[in-house]
Amino acid sequence: PVGPKMWLWKRTLTFSGVFLLQMGWGDLGVFGEPSKETPNLDQMAAEGMLFLDFYTANPLCSPSRAALLTGRLPVRNGFYTTNGHARNAYTPQDIVGGIPDSELLLPELLKKAGYVNKIIGKWHLGHRPQFHPLKHGFDEWFGSPNCHFGPYDNRERPNIPVYRDWEMIGRYYEDFKIDLKTGEANLTQLYLQEALDFISKQQASQQPFFLYWAIDATHAPVYASKQFLGTSQRGLYGDAVREIDDSVGKILKHLQQLGISENTFVFFTSDNGAALISAPRQGGSNGPFLCGKQTTFEGGMREPAIAWWPGHIPAGRVSRQLGSVMDLFSTSLSLAGLQPPADRQIDGIDLLPVILQGQLIDRPIFYYRGNELMAVRAGLYKAHYWTWSNSWEEHGKGIDFCPGQSVSGVTTHTQEEHTYLPLLFHLGRDPGEKFPLSFASEEYQRAVERISGLLQQHKATLVPGQPQLNVCDQAVMNWAPPGCEKLGKCLKVPESDPKKCSWPH
Amino acid sequence: PVGPKMWLWKRTLTFSGVFLLQMGWGDLGVFGEPSKETPNLDQMAAEGMLFLDFYTANPLCSPSRAALLTGRLPVRNGFYTTNGHARNAYTPQDIVGGIPDSELLLPELLKKAGYVNKIIGKWHLGHRPQFHPLKHGFDEWFGSPNCHFGPYDNRERPNIPVYRDWEMIGRYYEDFKIDLKTGEANLTQLYLQEALDFISKQQASQQPFFLYWAIDATHAPVYASKQFLGTSQRGLYGDAVREIDDSVGKILKHLQQLGISENTFVFFTSDNGAALISAPRQGGSNGPFLCGKQTTFEGGMREPAIAWWPGHIPAGRVSRQLGSVMDLFSTSLSLAGLQPPADRQIDGIDLLPVILQGQLIDRPIFYYRGNELMAVRAGLYKAHYWTWSNSWEEHGKGIDFCPGQSVSGVTTHTQEEHTYLPLLFHLGRDPGEKFPLSFASEEYQRAVERISGLLQQHKATLVPGQPQLNVCDQAVMNWAPPGCEKLGKCLKVPESDPKKCSWPH
Repeated sequence: PVGPKMWLWKRTLTFSGVFLLQMGWGDLGVFGEPSKETPNLDQMAAEGMLFLDFYTANPLCSPSRAALLTGRLPVRNGFYTTNGHARNAYTPQDIVGGIPDSELLLPELLKKAGYVNKIIGKWHLGHRPQFHPLKHGFDEWFGSPNCHFGPYDNRERPNIPVYRDWEMIGRYYEDFKIDLKTGEANLTQLYLQEALDFISKQQASQQPFFLYWAIDATHAPVYASKQFLGTSQRGLYGDAVREIDDSVGKILKHLQQLGISENTFVFFTSDNGAALISAPRQGGSNGPFLCGKQTTFEGGMREPAIAWWPGHIPAGRVSRQLGSVMDLFSTSLSLAGLQPPADRQIDGIDLLPVILQGQLIDRPIFYYRGNELMAVRAGLYKAHYWTWSNSWEEHGKGIDFCPGQSVSGVTTHTQEEHTYLPLLFHLGRDPGEKFPLSFASEEYQRAVERISGLLQQHKATLVPGQPQLNVCDQAVMNWAPPGCEKLGKCLKVPESDPKKCSWPH
Repeated sequence: PVGPKMWLWKRTLTFSGVFLLQMGWGDLGVFGEPSKETPNLDQMAAEGMLFLDFYTANPLCSPSRAALLTGRLPVRNGFYTTNGHARNAYTPQDIVGGIPDSELLLPELLKKAGYVNKIIGKWHLGHRPQFHPLKHGFDEWFGSPNCHFGPYDNRERPNIPVYRDWEMIGRYYEDFKIDLKTGEANLTQLYLQEALDFISKQQASQQPFFLYWAIDATHAPVYASKQFLGTSQRGLYGDAVREIDDSVGKILKHLQQLGISENTFVFFTSDNGAALISAPRQGGSNGPFLCGKQTTFEGGMREPAIAWWPGHIPAGRVSRQLGSVMDLFSTSLSLAGLQPPADRQIDGIDLLPVILQGQLIDRPIFYYRGNELMAVRAGLYKAHYWTWSNSWEEHGKGIDFCPGQSVSGVTTHTQEEHTYLPLLFHLGRDPGEKFPLSFASEEYQRAVERISGLLQQHKATLVPGQPQLNVCDQAVMNWAPPGCEKLGKCLKVPESDPKKCSWPH
């Protein structure tokens, strides 16, 4: 009776996505964090499906988020730079680019099926008017366009605005406090309340919804609400994780209390690995994996991932499906009874057969850094075509993406090309990418032959999008966002001075 | 009604210990091994109590096992060397020493309460006649006195014997096959069958028992039975883990089917961290911790640990109690209604209040390497008084206890003394021991003051035992073990040539 049932929930389904900023694979108890402080997420996994081999599309935030919402690799949707080779880029407030109008975002498509779409938290796909989330399919927004860095002086650089829907309602550090000394900020509580209210409202109006809960408490500057400060063994970062864990528990409980948990699909994952550079006070854990955020080693791109859907996903399942944040695009469309757009390449796959029937779909994972395909995973093998952590120059300044880790010839500080003889790892025997296979072995030959075939196929059909992250301009910063006049918070816009953005990593 | 119940199970309790050779903290799914291939151990944890902060007494096998069975630190029971400073020592087959008669072993004491004691697997507390396990409280033995290294030529060095009770019944590689090329050996199946049979026999005769199931499939040379070869994503080491996991599941099920699970206390742990030097083919995982076997970093001494006792331990408990293998001595005595010996210092504590009532007992952990106290943990703080991985000379030969890991000033290749200014880590914020606290911080001052007080107290009352692991002699090797004549397997004993054993690490 799968057919009728499928039809049933296609008609009534609500979809809720929980998507976090840089929480690492190893930050959840269920993934081996040694303090075991995430009872709600662990419980979510126990009631749902845990993905062990789930990846983000990029080791940095903006490109991963663009990939999540478009189902396409950043190199296709434009969220990359050509200013340098293999450089990570994102959307700081002086970025000129953002999500192109030509991209079709998940909420735009879901609208056609009657969904009401809300983003709570960080948008990060461009902050200029044409990139506003409500121009790209979202109906509601509470959150900010950029990272909560600051405080700024409002002369050299304005403080980041917080929006409600079309207009700003204040700025970080001015109206939305973040105490950098104590780490106190109540933002996660605000985001939680927004989520609970939105869900209640949608349930009351019987409208299907898509909630993109894009919180950022574990992104530096890390913060937690007062009642969570000091509650973790792990320090401030752990306090933030505990608050997120508690919030996720409250959202799931709310769905259950409203009686809509059986037609709400919830997915929890992250946009990049833990930022080890912020460790120990502000950095999380990538478990046994190599390095962290900014790198294409496992620590930079393998993510915690849990699917939850009571009554549909049997409790306690574990999947070894190679998954990607881009799959959430295709899977969500499938849940809504929609087809993915046929006029463009979609990199995500529909995970429903995996989630509902326990199937395993053979597909590769592509690890990009900026404009370069650094590595490819197929099955348990991962071939690195390029290796780089960061430059000697940056490393010399104390910027270390792999603190305490050093694998000769792997965590290199110069960009090393291996396109003719890729570095191959078996992630089952060597999840930490410490022991490259011998080039002379039959196993190496077989695996590289297969992966190189996949790579050629991928490259042959790849049409890169126009790079959006090349140009920065002080004039585009958040000087005078819509709504600033009502608040008396408009700042003087400086002269335009477009420059190539500098992307050291 | 705890009193009467306590009395009841004191009368009828059986005690079964599962103690493994060098399985790492990170080798169990429940501790975050990314292939999640230990369903039975994970289930054992789900039904019992998982210890997150459980330690062995030494980063090497023989001393840890001596500590387990005596409840005393190796420096007290003699399982250490003074041939060099801070050197690990064990019991190879040319070792002259072994467990002193003056030591009281757990099975000797349990006998007084009517227990029948069996050791299955590796003894490792000396192989000369006076050290035989049946002279130290065990009633039965199936296994070997030393590691299953080999094969040897029986001229320079004899193959290791396998004993049944008092006599050898064959030798490794000759009568008990281990195929070094394929990794095939059926030893774990033999050990499993021995365990099931012993449990059945004891249940039938209604006698309380202590089973020390000291298997060694994850110790190099790693092996697995044919039906497990190739079943793991993790290679041969994973195959061995899967077979152990399967065996533990069968033992627990057997106890349940016999109806004695509610009066059998089972504990699962390991004698040292995973031997990263054997990675990737023969080495396991220490999860997010630093280095492995042979070192006093967390990877060398923090162990997987699970207590299981249906009807007494509530399901799914997690404890942050700082525990030690030595506690199994005191806890077992307590379970049997016995008092620990009053004429000597016992380092183990009774964990029953932790296990049954969820209490937390404040106690330090001492990290010894040979004759040196390298580090002390109290609460979440760990102070290193000495750091050393191994010498440059050994490291230059490719012997690396911390592959891919290098923490400046911490994973040192010279023995670094920090007794005046210990290196301090907060294991909650920094479980990987990568970020020493600033010497100038108040937090450092407070924590070091407390830990140094504990250290002084410990050292003031410490009476080291006679070191047993100083002298080696080719004449004491397993040339002609008891029973060899029946098998025609006696070898010529060479002339005695006692020498200082060489302990490079």
